[in-house]
Amino acid sequence: MSVENKGGLVIVSEAACKAVIDRESAFSAVESVFAAMARGDAYNFPVIREAIGYADALYGFKSGFDRAGKALGLKSGGYWPGNEAKGLTNHQSTIFLFDPDTGKLRALVGGNYLTAVRTAAASAVSIAHLARKDSKVLGMIGAGHQSTFQLRAALEQRNFEKIVAWNENKDRLGNLQAIAEEAGIPFESVEREQLGAEADVIITITSAFEPLLMKEWIKPGTHIACMGTDTKGKQEVDPALIAAATVFTDEIAQSITIGEAQHAVAQGLIAEDDITPIGDVINGKHAGRSSDDEITIFDGTGVGLQDLAIASVAAELAVKKGEAQQIEL
Amino acid sequence: MSVENKGGLVIVSEAACKAVIDRESAFSAVESVFAAMARGDAYNFPVIREAIGYADALYGFKSGFDRAGKALGLKSGGYWPGNEAKGLTNHQSTIFLFDPDTGKLRALVGGNYLTAVRTAAASAVSIAHLARKDSKVLGMIGAGHQSTFQLRAALEQRNFEKIVAWNENKDRLGNLQAIAEEAGIPFESVEREQLGAEADVIITITSAFEPLLMKEWIKPGTHIACMGTDTKGKQEVDPALIAAATVFTDEIAQSITIGEAQHAVAQGLIAEDDITPIGDVINGKHAGRSSDDEITIFDGTGVGLQDLAIASVAAELAVKKGEAQQIEL
Repeated sequence: MSVENKGGLVIVSEAACKAVIDRESAFSAVESVFAAMARGDAYNFPVIREAIGYADALYGFKSGFDRAGKALGLKSGGYWPGNEAKGLTNHQSTIFLFDPDTGKLRALVGGNYLTAVRTAAASAVSIAHLARKDSKVLGMIGAGHQSTFQLRAALEQRNFEKIVAWNENKDRLGNLQAIAEEAGIPFESVEREQLGAEADVIITITSAFEPLLMKEWIKPGTHIACMGTDTKGKQEVDPALIAAATVFTDEIAQSITIGEAQHAVAQGLIAEDDITPIGDVINGKHAGRSSDDEITIFDGTGVGLQDLAIASVAAELAVKKGEAQQIEL
Repeated sequence: MSVENKGGLVIVSEAACKAVIDRESAFSAVESVFAAMARGDAYNFPVIREAIGYADALYGFKSGFDRAGKALGLKSGGYWPGNEAKGLTNHQSTIFLFDPDTGKLRALVGGNYLTAVRTAAASAVSIAHLARKDSKVLGMIGAGHQSTFQLRAALEQRNFEKIVAWNENKDRLGNLQAIAEEAGIPFESVEREQLGAEADVIITITSAFEPLLMKEWIKPGTHIACMGTDTKGKQEVDPALIAAATVFTDEIAQSITIGEAQHAVAQGLIAEDDITPIGDVINGKHAGRSSDDEITIFDGTGVGLQDLAIASVAAELAVKKGEAQQIEL
């Protein structure tokens, strides 16, 4: 964060984040940090995630340091399933940025909206770098809160002419349909097999613990961004599909342990070396898609550095635009 | 933190911490949380500690959850060796408290002063529960910034009539002598062997990587609080002294890996089972000192729960006394 703040603490509320961060800035922050990770300029620290034995909550930290972007800090928070009944979102998070030159706390940034846009930016970055340029049909698996962010970001990457969508509870598809109507793009609720047959790009964004997309349903040339699997045991696609595809990820260590690739790796269908950091594609070290028939998969596991990158931009813009509070500690 | 704050964020500056936290409140917060840990009501999460490869800094988090005290959160920060040249303290830390019922950030509390007083409170708690009641001579090994906090807190636990002190750099002993004079207690700079021969209670608070106190120098009945060793490789006392003593600690998992007991355990002189959580003594589950001749050692490794406990008290008192800033996030 390259902000003059004379040693004070910059506070950026959820509302200020919404006011200053658009999809374009999220995209470029996430793309830059994926590139820095692949160059070795940025690394994530071990993730802490604890079931605290209270309020059924999962609580923890994602953290890291980006030497190139001078972003040091963590996102802290977690999942409180009882929140919705209290009028709060179940996911709660806050991002803290420290000055890498002195260790002093520099900024406190609301993490709820930023988590949604940085996760959407990750799949968008994967579409930009890996999907066929002539992709026409976008398929959405999942219609929860996060899916709307995913859809909006994806629509900006290719000239999509149709959206096909599936969700276990069909009632929630209205979330996605409204965005399609706003964008003037035809929308259809379909079964998963048909979704696979039609879609050129697919985003999975569910909390599933079993495959929702089978290998034989997917046509050659499809790009799939698997965005829901971030824990041991979760699963959105057929391991055979992972084995048949060229697999990219944000961070290999997470991909093979808590990401979508965990199952294919555990079954011996692919090895760690078969997975490429998407930063290598951004940096031009890996060519990305090699043919129009190749199936590409992006295993988006979510890393702390994404949070730090977007929070840094939010803090900088919020100060510049007068949306930040600044206090002395 | 049992504070009514209507969902806003409570900010407690370093100055506010100094204004509201005295040694008595630090002592009772630390004693309570050690007791909660031993009862299984509070636990520390894994510690993250990273050499970030920039500014020679060590950065990380200590975190945990105290169900009894409803304290959830972390202390983040680290060690920046270049700070002193910039007029800042090398250790920098901030404590963040979250609402265990919703996951929302509730308080941000300056951690520099609180770290010093909570560390001093830990050795004071050990003296209160383990030192002979008739202890007359207090020995100090180390005379850095933290040692002054240690000395002040220790003086309140027994009717000490003399202070003997050793530091590698004798010039720094003036820090401790000034406190002794203030308290009206005779002070003497001594060599370590003499310190062992005279002292009834000893506090070691250094950054040493080799034993500074040998077993044969220590007289029967001494209580030693080893407060400096918090990392693999650090060491303040002879492993044979550990083996000859009854060993207590804040947290056994840390004691045997990064605490003073790491060396005696690695050498097979004692086993994990030979170490008792001091919380068991506080809770009355363990009798503590069993005779006037027993040597007792407290291996104070420093746990995140101490930070959360004292920060909770600081936030509560700061709100009550009008010393906190409160903002909406």
